[in-house]
Amino acid sequence: MRQIEKRAVEWIGSSGMCASEREKAWVVATHSTDFMAWVTPVAEDDRLLAAALWVYWGFGFDDARCDNGPLSSRPAQFNALAGQVQRACEAHSARGEDRFIAALQDIVGRFRSFAPPPQVRRFVHAHRAWLSGVAWQIGNQAVGRMPGLDDFLAMRLLSCGGEPTFALLELATGVEVTDRELHRPAVRALTEMAICVAGLDNDRHSLRKELVGKETDQNIYTVLMQERSLALHEAVEAAAGLRDRVLLRFLQLHDRVRPTAGTELATYLQGLRYGIRGNNEWGLRVPRYLSLGHWPDEMEDAALVWADRPSDTRPGPVEGAPGIAWWWDADLA
Amino acid sequence: MRQIEKRAVEWIGSSGMCASEREKAWVVATHSTDFMAWVTPVAEDDRLLAAALWVYWGFGFDDARCDNGPLSSRPAQFNALAGQVQRACEAHSARGEDRFIAALQDIVGRFRSFAPPPQVRRFVHAHRAWLSGVAWQIGNQAVGRMPGLDDFLAMRLLSCGGEPTFALLELATGVEVTDRELHRPAVRALTEMAICVAGLDNDRHSLRKELVGKETDQNIYTVLMQERSLALHEAVEAAAGLRDRVLLRFLQLHDRVRPTAGTELATYLQGLRYGIRGNNEWGLRVPRYLSLGHWPDEMEDAALVWADRPSDTRPGPVEGAPGIAWWWDADLA
Repeated sequence: MRQIEKRAVEWIGSSGMCASEREKAWVVATHSTDFMAWVTPVAEDDRLLAAALWVYWGFGFDDARCDNGPLSSRPAQFNALAGQVQRACEAHSARGEDRFIAALQDIVGRFRSFAPPPQVRRFVHAHRAWLSGVAWQIGNQAVGRMPGLDDFLAMRLLSCGGEPTFALLELATGVEVTDRELHRPAVRALTEMAICVAGLDNDRHSLRKELVGKETDQNIYTVLMQERSLALHEAVEAAAGLRDRVLLRFLQLHDRVRPTAGTELATYLQGLRYGIRGNNEWGLRVPRYLSLGHWPDEMEDAALVWADRPSDTRPGPVEGAPGIAWWWDADLA
Repeated sequence: MRQIEKRAVEWIGSSGMCASEREKAWVVATHSTDFMAWVTPVAEDDRLLAAALWVYWGFGFDDARCDNGPLSSRPAQFNALAGQVQRACEAHSARGEDRFIAALQDIVGRFRSFAPPPQVRRFVHAHRAWLSGVAWQIGNQAVGRMPGLDDFLAMRLLSCGGEPTFALLELATGVEVTDRELHRPAVRALTEMAICVAGLDNDRHSLRKELVGKETDQNIYTVLMQERSLALHEAVEAAAGLRDRVLLRFLQLHDRVRPTAGTELATYLQGLRYGIRGNNEWGLRVPRYLSLGHWPDEMEDAALVWADRPSDTRPGPVEGAPGIAWWWDADLA
């Protein structure tokens, strides 16, 4: 894996996507190769590399063009850039001036070289979904709107980047799930739940960083504090409970779907599980979330402590979040 | 068909999506049942009705929330509404205050009742693509930016609504194309080219209306006038030439793909052809584009005059439009 990381770091340097040595250092410090290796431990080298490159790219783009930077509260400009980036993702002939565009096309070109068109197309759709969530978030920031819980969850499912990340599962493993299986409502619910858990975990990972940043940032804590008039420590507890309830439902539904899944679907479902776990193994140590200085620190190698039971075991849909209530439909199949 | 139109008009009245009798009159006057019947002449009644309802809905949403109305230059607000609408499209449990949301869920619920999940999912992806193009357009409008030709074509491919319209093909006919066939680069190129021709034709249909409206609107004429320093009549000629070159390439590639297509793909390809033709049969007569008054006029029944040859037969990619240049790739298969 260190060999793949080395190739990735070389690519980041030569891709032209970073405007400075410091920006490059922060992209490298996302340790995206580690992340992808957690999510797809069985991937071949070239596939793992290409998938990891997109994760590096996504973090770089996020930092320079989404969460921070001049476009973070300029939705008109972001919508146009997102349109150009998305066109570059789906059309190899497209051109664009932004420094992230050619780098993205290099990555997607790798996907096309080893994956059949339907898998690449799924990634393209997932990529648009991600950008649409970022555009929503940037719009909220522009007008100073803190979304309610229901809107926030719908937005965070998109903006956290889980859709393209899980679309990388098939590209990295080379295991093709059929359209009919992937779009089964139960499989779609499992995918969304895995994204939700990972997205809320990411909010937890970056809580320390957010606390020293702007308090107007949209995350599960600021949302719950406003929606339910909670203090921060209460919001942290409520968010953990919400996250645990989603994870419990994920496990329950997974255990119903898994026994009847064929090899390909089983590999995909395992990828969702690796994704939830790996996102924490990685996110609780990565300088992206932990380093507060001008330059990133080294990766931490502290042992993780896992809770030995869920903090909230209430069944049924989460209150005040109709947009995700269907995950608890009794007839999901 | 008049029976289906009658049911559609009743639905529009009871759906709650229209805020006034005048708004309802304009939605009804889109004659979307006629449009869908041109595009899918073989559809069963209930399928044709559901598909037509979405077209009515799309025009109503477009008029009230996109092209005109208070959000037409407020990208932050539109991004949030688009997020809510899209979530409602994909999650039956979602709720939203906007009057268009429940109506959309009624329509998508019909799709789910007769189509398998992959077909509905394709519509959902197409729906997001459409909204992303509208968001791009609204962002441009907000900052007074007239896009260049390359950006405009990428945006118009999305904002014209061709993606969801052609996703209705499968839903209306009940003919399922496999993932592997639908995402073949050649089939994808044909889909995009059909959308491009229809989108440019719609710009032509609404030229008369646009001319009495704001001159800052983004359409192929204003874009070409700026990009190439043309007078309006020159831009009209250049746009016709561009459109004809895309149509010629569509026909050329179609004739290469069609002989090897199975029944399902052949039905889909025929739908693209019906779509291009039907869009003109409908668009050259519909009050949406022709009526300039406060209330829509009756549908015109004038005979159409078709050009007997293309105005521009130059092969190869269109100059200054790299984002669509891949349609002319020699190895498209």
